Amino acid sequence: MQFFPIHTRLIKPKEDYLEIILEAMKAQSLTFEDGDILILSEKIVATSEGRIVNLKEVKASPRAKELAKKYYVDEKTVELVLQEADEVLSGVPRILLTLKNNMLMPNAGIDHSNAPSDHVILLPKDPWISAEKARSKIMKRFGRRIGVLIIDSRVMPMRMGTIGLALGVAGFEPMDDIRGRDDLYGKMLLVTLRAVADDLASAAQLVMGEANESNPAVLARGAPVMMTDRPIKRDSMYISPDECLYIRGFERWNWGKKDRKREMP
Amino acid sequence: MQFFPIHTRLIKPKEDYLEIILEAMKAQSLTFEDGDILILSEKIVATSEGRIVNLKEVKASPRAKELAKKYYVDEKTVELVLQEADEVLSGVPRILLTLKNNMLMPNAGIDHSNAPSDHVILLPKDPWISAEKARSKIMKRFGRRIGVLIIDSRVMPMRMGTIGLALGVAGFEPMDDIRGRDDLYGKMLLVTLRAVADDLASAAQLVMGEANESNPAVLARGAPVMMTDRPIKRDSMYISPDECLYIRGFERWNWGKKDRKREMP
Repeated sequence: MQFFPIHTRLIKPKEDYLEIILEAMKAQSLTFEDGDILILSEKIVATSEGRIVNLKEVKASPRAKELAKKYYVDEKTVELVLQEADEVLSGVPRILLTLKNNMLMPNAGIDHSNAPSDHVILLPKDPWISAEKARSKIMKRFGRRIGVLIIDSRVMPMRMGTIGLALGVAGFEPMDDIRGRDDLYGKMLLVTLRAVADDLASAAQLVMGEANESNPAVLARGAPVMMTDRPIKRDSMYISPDECLYIRGFERWNWGKKDRKREMP
Repeated sequence: MQFFPIHTRLIKPKEDYLEIILEAMKAQSLTFEDGDILILSEKIVATSEGRIVNLKEVKASPRAKELAKKYYVDEKTVELVLQEADEVLSGVPRILLTLKNNMLMPNAGIDHSNAPSDHVILLPKDPWISAEKARSKIMKRFGRRIGVLIIDSRVMPMRMGTIGLALGVAGFEPMDDIRGRDDLYGKMLLVTLRAVADDLASAAQLVMGEANESNPAVLARGAPVMMTDRPIKRDSMYISPDECLYIRGFERWNWGKKDRKREMP
C-alpha cells in the first residue's frame, strides 16, 4: 500500500480544485490506476466551493451571543455554528460540540486555520456529492475505476492530537464487514467491522500535514478496500448515540462531580 | 509513504515473536532501512508474552459477579477486567469502559478473537517496554535506526467500526507538534497537534486485517515522523478527562434522559 502526496499551488475561492490537482499530478508524473483512491482535504474542496466566510459580514443573533458568552467562543463564529450544525449537542470552553452530516464535530467543522485573515472555512456543502462528482469526472476522463475520499481532522476521547476522519466517500466500501469470517483459530468473528475509510483518512493525514505543506490531496495505491459503483449511503459510518459506548458510558460516569468522586458502574 | 504487510505463521504462546517476524521478512525479501517503523499487532506481542488466559481457570469474585449481571458480560471475563484495568469507569450492556495505561479501553483490552477456544488474550504487559526492546534488538542486529509501534483497535464516538490505536511507541515522536508553525496564509497555528502514532496505527490496521489474514506486523517506510533515541513518555498521547471535549461535552449532554429531550448547552 502506497501513499503519494500531491503538492499543489494555493487554491483561490471558486477555482476548480480538481483541475489544480490533476495539473499537480501531471507535474509529479502521477497517473491513475484502477483501484486508486484519491484523498482530498475538506479545505481544498470547501475553498473551491466558495465556502469561505468573512467574519466581518456575520451578524450574531441573541442566541449566538448567549452561547458565545457561556463558552468563550467569538459570537460571529457561534452564529455560523448555529447556521451550519444540524444540532448543537453540548459545549466546553472554546468549543461547541455539534452534530453535522451524522458526525460529531467541534464547532460544526468551522475552521480558522488555512483561511485568509478574518475569514473562516466551512465544511464542503455536501462531501458525498463532491466525492461522487470528482470520481465520475476522473473515470470519464481517464477511464480508470477509482475511489474518492474527502477527509477532515478530529480528536479522540482522552487522547492528545488529531487523526483523520472520513467525511465523504465514493467508489469504495467505507466499512469492511468481517462479521461471519473466521479468526486465526477458525472461530467465527461476531462483531467486528473495520472503518477502512477512517483508517485511510488517518493515513492520508500523516502525508498531508496541517500547516503550510500544501499537500491537499493524496493518492493511495494498493489499499485493501472493496471498490464499488453503488452510491455509498450517507449514514454508513454512523452509529446512534444509543449504541455508542462513549456516550452511554460517559453519561453514567460521574467525572467532574464534586471532588471528582466517581460513582462506580 | 509505503506499508508492507508481513505475513507470518501462527505464533504459539511464549515463542519469540520478533524472530518469527524477522524470518517472515527474510522470506519476503524485506530489509530494514533507517527511518522505517515496524508496526506490531498487540496480539502477537501478547501471545509471545504468554498473556493468554484459560477462562476455565478463572474464579469470579462477588464484585465481578455483580458487574457481570448488571452489564451482561461473562463473569470470568469481568474478573479479568477487574484485575487488568487501572480503573473501571463505566459500562454499557456487554462492555465495561475502563482506563488502562492511560487509555480508554473496552473491557481493559481483553479480547476473545484470535484466541484459542475458551481462552482470552490480555494486552501486552507493558507495550512501551516491549516496543523499546524490539527497537534496540533490531538496531543492534541490523545497524538501522528504526521505530517500533504496537497497535490495537478502538472505536470512535458515534462512529461505526474500528480504527487503529497506538499502544506503545519507541524510536519516534508519537505527536507532531505544529504549534507555532505558519498556516497557508502565514498565520501562526495555535493549537494543532497531530497524533502521528495513531495515524500510523490506523494505516497499519488497514493492511493487517482482523480476521485470519495473519499479517501481525507491517513495515512502514517513508512515514513523515521525527525519529528520536529518547525514551518516549508514557503519557505523551494522553489528555485528562478534564481537557477532553467528549467527556466534558457528553456529561452536559442529556441524551438518554426521559423521552430524549435534551437540554441545550
